[in-house]
Amino acid sequence: MQTTSQANPALFSRERLIRFSDCDPAGIVFYPQYFVMFNGLVEDWFNEGLAIGYQKVVIERRIGLPTVHLEADFRAVSAMGDQVVLSLDVERLGGRSLTLQVHCTGRDDGVLRMQAQIVLVTTSLDNHGAITIPDDIRSAVTVAQARRQALD
Amino acid sequence: MQTTSQANPALFSRERLIRFSDCDPAGIVFYPQYFVMFNGLVEDWFNEGLAIGYQKVVIERRIGLPTVHLEADFRAVSAMGDQVVLSLDVERLGGRSLTLQVHCTGRDDGVLRMQAQIVLVTTSLDNHGAITIPDDIRSAVTVAQARRQALD
Amino acid sequence: MQTTSQANPALFSRERLIRFSDCDPAGIVFYPQYFVMFNGLVEDWFNEGLAIGYQKVVIERRIGLPTVHLEADFRAVSAMGDQVVLSLDVERLGGRSLTLQVHCTGRDDGVLRMQAQIVLVTTSLDNHGAITIPDDIRSAVTVAQARRQALD
Amino acid sequence: MQTTSQANPALFSRERLIRFSDCDPAGIVFYPQYFVMFNGLVEDWFNEGLAIGYQKVVIERRIGLPTVHLEADFRAVSAMGDQVVLSLDVERLGGRSLTLQVHCTGRDDGVLRMQAQIVLVTTSLDNHGAITIPDDIRSAVTVAQARRQALD
Repeated sequence: MQTTSQANPALFSRERLIRFSDCDPAGIVFYPQYFVMFNGLVEDWFNEGLAIGYQKVVIERRIGLPTVHLEADFRAVSAMGDQVVLSLDVERLGGRSLTLQVHCTGRDDGVLRMQAQIVLVTTSLDNHGAITIPDDIRSAVTVAQARRQALD
Repeated sequence: MQTTSQANPALFSRERLIRFSDCDPAGIVFYPQYFVMFNGLVEDWFNEGLAIGYQKVVIERRIGLPTVHLEADFRAVSAMGDQVVLSLDVERLGGRSLTLQVHCTGRDDGVLRMQAQIVLVTTSLDNHGAITIPDDIRSAVTVAQARRQALD
Repeated sequence: MQTTSQANPALFSRERLIRFSDCDPAGIVFYPQYFVMFNGLVEDWFNEGLAIGYQKVVIERRIGLPTVHLEADFRAVSAMGDQVVLSLDVERLGGRSLTLQVHCTGRDDGVLRMQAQIVLVTTSLDNHGAITIPDDIRSAVTVAQARRQALD
Repeated sequence: MQTTSQANPALFSRERLIRFSDCDPAGIVFYPQYFVMFNGLVEDWFNEGLAIGYQKVVIERRIGLPTVHLEADFRAVSAMGDQVVLSLDVERLGGRSLTLQVHCTGRDDGVLRMQAQIVLVTTSLDNHGAITIPDDIRSAVTVAQARRQALD
């Protein structure tokens, strides 16, 4: 059983309640909803962790952050009323892509519910073609990683 | 560019309109919604392709079909108003798991939008533990595969 | 118990399966999902009933169709696997607004599941302000209503 | 322009960020999503305001809280990145029903985005029939209302 390690905190994490509206007739999280939750985590990371307004990126700068590749393992169910911790780490910062490792873990039991590797690319919302990651985003991610490594 | 091949039809497929409610502020399918669509395709496959009522499986027999592993590639965007073909093939029929290959392809342009490998397990909805695939489901999948191979 | 009347068919209707993804931990349709379904019905009505491409209206002509007022009664539950009929009638065609009466009825039992009055306005997606209903849409709605009344 | 009044605070309220996943191709909240948000607000109210575990009510006690009637006005759009305040007041505590007034207001501009009257009933999840509101819920709502009136 994999647990969250206090010794090695994630780059960014947020607690979240599993809600009625996240769950399916089996009473557990309907799995596409995990990806909605992690989309929200990336949003919070941009806003709060990187101090780069997600809304400004998408709406004003018309830069998209679509997912181009995804690998996910679902290890244990999350039920309505569970408090979970959603966390993310940067696995790779490429020229046009950002590879994240994300985890959903029970806050109280430390049990890993699911984990995924998510590869995002930066795109132009005018034509949906990939673009180089803008300098301010690259710089903010690099700083965040360096700060985290200094803590290890 | 990968296209759908007439010579090698999928085991099961359905057309679907990309709707307003499937799309995000970038005007394209919000990627978790692909998994909602494929969940619906599996439902239709059980109901229409395998003649095993999906609702009976989940509600009356209390058998779950959760996804335990997922790998997906997103190749091209799908926009509101697109007609797409969702298709599935069985890659592996295991003791307790079913590995599907799914594709979403533009109906008119034949362009592959996304593809995924989805591993489902059969579970008891009483305790969410994995169970052996019930005989009627195994048999129906085996017959469907045999029928398809006879067409090749 | 209100049933669908063969003598007085709705202006536009479509059958739809209640899916796993429409339902909540109580095993029945999560009520916001009814409004997603009716949004899809309006989309189908524009595309198929009025022959005015919904996608063209929203994306190319940048005309929005937001809901500004809603009244809904939920009479009976819809469960996963139910086949329902979604129908709509035009109650009022105003200068900038369109008032619809929508119903969700069991296909097999004829039982009314929910009904709603939905008031839509046409807006400019550039500033979200209300605009006069475009002539082609007004004309198509008027023709559809006249055709329906001739059938009564 | 209606604004939130500091002199007359709501019975229960929570801030919420309008997320990418709440929004549609017009870049604004897709209206059914407001009802998902208010379902979450009722969940938070039960858990935090009434100290009655929502999850216990639904899962352990098998009591449903479906919406049976709804009237909503949508006054101004909410866009991705907006911080809004969701609030609720009890309009009427009946024998088997609870009538709520809910509002969504911009946190920073005080502009009312939408308001709704939502009538919930308590039901048995075994047969979906209405049941008398359980004593602990009735008592907690009554205490919360009395406490609020003492503040007026």
